[in-house]
Amino acid sequence: MNGAESLVRTLLACGVDTCFANPGTSEMHFVAALDAVPGMRCVLGLAEGVVTGCADGYGRMALKPAATLLHCGPGFANGIANLHNARRARSPVVNIVGDHATYHRPYDPPLASDVQGLARPVSDWVRSSQDSVTVGRHAAAAVQAALTPPGQVATLILPADASWSEGAEVASALPPPARRVVDGRHVRDIAAVLQRRQPTVILLGDDALGERGLAAAERVAQATGARLRATGQVRRMARGHGRPAVDRVPYALEKALEVFAGVRHIVLVGARAPVQFFAYPGKPSVVYPPDAELHTLAELDEDQVGALEALAEGVGGTQGGVSAQPARGGSLPRGPFTHEGFGAVFESLLPENAVVADDAVTSGRQLFGHTFNAAPHEWLQITGGAIGHALPCATGAAVGAPGRKVVCLQADGGGMYSLQALWTQAREKLDVVTVIFANRAYRILQGELLAVGAKPGAASKDLFDLGRPALDWTMLAAGMGVEAARADTLEAFADLFTAACARRGPFLIELEA
Amino acid sequence: MNGAESLVRTLLACGVDTCFANPGTSEMHFVAALDAVPGMRCVLGLAEGVVTGCADGYGRMALKPAATLLHCGPGFANGIANLHNARRARSPVVNIVGDHATYHRPYDPPLASDVQGLARPVSDWVRSSQDSVTVGRHAAAAVQAALTPPGQVATLILPADASWSEGAEVASALPPPARRVVDGRHVRDIAAVLQRRQPTVILLGDDALGERGLAAAERVAQATGARLRATGQVRRMARGHGRPAVDRVPYALEKALEVFAGVRHIVLVGARAPVQFFAYPGKPSVVYPPDAELHTLAELDEDQVGALEALAEGVGGTQGGVSAQPARGGSLPRGPFTHEGFGAVFESLLPENAVVADDAVTSGRQLFGHTFNAAPHEWLQITGGAIGHALPCATGAAVGAPGRKVVCLQADGGGMYSLQALWTQAREKLDVVTVIFANRAYRILQGELLAVGAKPGAASKDLFDLGRPALDWTMLAAGMGVEAARADTLEAFADLFTAACARRGPFLIELEA
Repeated sequence: MNGAESLVRTLLACGVDTCFANPGTSEMHFVAALDAVPGMRCVLGLAEGVVTGCADGYGRMALKPAATLLHCGPGFANGIANLHNARRARSPVVNIVGDHATYHRPYDPPLASDVQGLARPVSDWVRSSQDSVTVGRHAAAAVQAALTPPGQVATLILPADASWSEGAEVASALPPPARRVVDGRHVRDIAAVLQRRQPTVILLGDDALGERGLAAAERVAQATGARLRATGQVRRMARGHGRPAVDRVPYALEKALEVFAGVRHIVLVGARAPVQFFAYPGKPSVVYPPDAELHTLAELDEDQVGALEALAEGVGGTQGGVSAQPARGGSLPRGPFTHEGFGAVFESLLPENAVVADDAVTSGRQLFGHTFNAAPHEWLQITGGAIGHALPCATGAAVGAPGRKVVCLQADGGGMYSLQALWTQAREKLDVVTVIFANRAYRILQGELLAVGAKPGAASKDLFDLGRPALDWTMLAAGMGVEAARADTLEAFADLFTAACARRGPFLIELEA
Repeated sequence: MNGAESLVRTLLACGVDTCFANPGTSEMHFVAALDAVPGMRCVLGLAEGVVTGCADGYGRMALKPAATLLHCGPGFANGIANLHNARRARSPVVNIVGDHATYHRPYDPPLASDVQGLARPVSDWVRSSQDSVTVGRHAAAAVQAALTPPGQVATLILPADASWSEGAEVASALPPPARRVVDGRHVRDIAAVLQRRQPTVILLGDDALGERGLAAAERVAQATGARLRATGQVRRMARGHGRPAVDRVPYALEKALEVFAGVRHIVLVGARAPVQFFAYPGKPSVVYPPDAELHTLAELDEDQVGALEALAEGVGGTQGGVSAQPARGGSLPRGPFTHEGFGAVFESLLPENAVVADDAVTSGRQLFGHTFNAAPHEWLQITGGAIGHALPCATGAAVGAPGRKVVCLQADGGGMYSLQALWTQAREKLDVVTVIFANRAYRILQGELLAVGAKPGAASKDLFDLGRPALDWTMLAAGMGVEAARADTLEAFADLFTAACARRGPFLIELEA
């Protein structure tokens, strides 16, 4: 058996049965092994940023890694931005990166590059198999690494000769470590802090934002008067009526400072101390008062849900507080896009059990808070700030959560980084409704320029303007085989969105925002 | 003066007056400085691969660097693939990469990443300015590095506080070193080798492929019986009638071996020993006989043209050989795409003084040899194998060589990596005719799978198929504001290409290939 075949068989033995791929010549034996060994679903992406963004969305929904198949250094590099997002989400991902044959590498052929050097900044685990014998063992270790709590990006570099040489063996799955259990005494210490009933925010991230974690957190809040907040970026959050309406730490500094004003204690659960996304001249980096005490209930790799449930018991929290209510019926807002209006429409029409992928940037910043009363759903957000995330994330989420409607909220500027994902949606007939917020600007940057105290001039006006020429997303989508239509008003959007949700398969709405 | 303003003023003082940009928040002060200081032409790209590919094309034509403006680590990473190509072309490029403020970085905000680690594999020179005082000095050093022969990629990382803090100073231009002159005795030694008239190939790359270098090389060949070859990838080559018809080292191993069969001497001029692009099981990495002697006339950073002219004099080469002839008139081939037919049409219709950007992959592999008799033109090729190069390279070349018609030859698979370049062409009204070779497959990989001895199966057939769904490039182009039409036959192509060349501004032809 050659290295490539041992790799495919080992991945399957470890439960990895989906491969997002953009192969090249050095990966030909891996591709040949995919031909020879049944059981791996291969999903082609026409750019590597699509491939890695898909793996992120898949990992968040399937709770296990997909493999990616990427070509040498430059191919891997094209996927780095969405691996950065995946890593910030702690999504499990196993990258397989082909490289030149070990003996060919010293000749420095045109495509030779420092793959390890490129991989390290976005990988928690990197190995290069120098011969076929080690490939299976490395593959099992890569999957184990990806599944190590809270989830990691593992990158296995596969030189062509390690792939094509014989003598390889299939390795057995290696069990990943379980999440560490939080010590009962530590939980009691935090309970004692909360029972002092001083102004406290419990900051929830990671696993704590699932249905059970949120329910336990709500019981704690009800019993102690602490307020709940989600991190500014959420990997995967359970939301909608019947669930606690927990808002995020706002992006804007002034609003974030308001949230934490007067707070004496911050209890961190799968979250780190809240900091600003960017620094601004003369403004603080952290958004909480200097004298606030930070308490970590559960680290990222610990059992956050168990700790929250123990804490709820410790503080005598027997029932939750007020959950979100079903969205009111009646007439929906009409007319041009407004944040409130769109929020109300979206809240009313979002299908039950939907998965929302959110990279709407300025157009979506208020949407999170406006849609707590929607039907129960889950929210996946861009976590690392590398824009263009929602299109591939939604695509991968649809592969990882079959049977659920996926709604992709994508700003137009970011969307142009990864529009190729639409082709994969069409090819795989994925059940994704994409909303492009077409404001025809890098609107966030218009705000950021003011935030740093500068006055817009000719160069900046030009550099932030996406309207010359205007992008036509209905044509872009049609060019990749996805049906699309444009909505200039909220009522037009409501009609299109309702129709798109009622059918299966991809559809794109370009919304004038 | 703040760091950002000193940066813009220093770049201008060093002759860098063009900036390909995709800015983000950490670059806001740089953008504000662009507003404040006149003289820098800013060209927006909607993805960073477009930005860096533009800088490559611009550098090849303008013979000086453009600046790129890129956002933090993931933004930079999106540009790595075309920086890899630029570096293999030895194009001069100055990257300006914004990053978090130095004091904000330790908080590890979501977008924080190892920018230096990502920059190093594709940069010959990397610096990070830790305060505003050093920015101007670093900028002048970056331009000097970019212009250091044979051309380099320089990356300057600009933390936001180095950008916004006062106390900065404009630095003066630093003269780059000249190309080293090749010693006369060394030239005479090589002349002596050639005068033995044993089977010899002179391998030309880099500067040697310009008009003067080729003319001198032709005189050497005429006088000594040596054969001329260009490297497998050419940065910028003077071609067309009146110029020597020098073919490249073929991509396919068997054909490359034929070129060098029986060769006793290989004289390298701005070129390295010829190696295979990829290794294949049981096949050699180098394409020349083991007993062939390698002689370097001029290294990459040496004066290759001067050395060739001295060599021509040394071997008594007073006149060149047979140059290419004007393409025959008469009727052009008709019917569906063939390599020969397309070559004949393209050779006849290519406008004089055109710049051709070539990433046509399989569809274009024979085109180079079929078009020596075209009107005089220059040929820019993808050099590093990171596909999707021609679209941005042509875009940047059009900025760097105003008044010349640029023809972009792009395979459809690669084109999907960087289609966003079309929008920049429309926005800047650049004079680029793009030909998309629509074979709706990763056809090169179909061949490569066979080359490694594998038999195509279901997975590989699927992974190499771009026809499900078919991409519609006329819609993709129109969605970005570029007029486009489809040609199913060579005669339809001829009509469209003639019309597109007769007018100014971008046009795209999707050619059924």
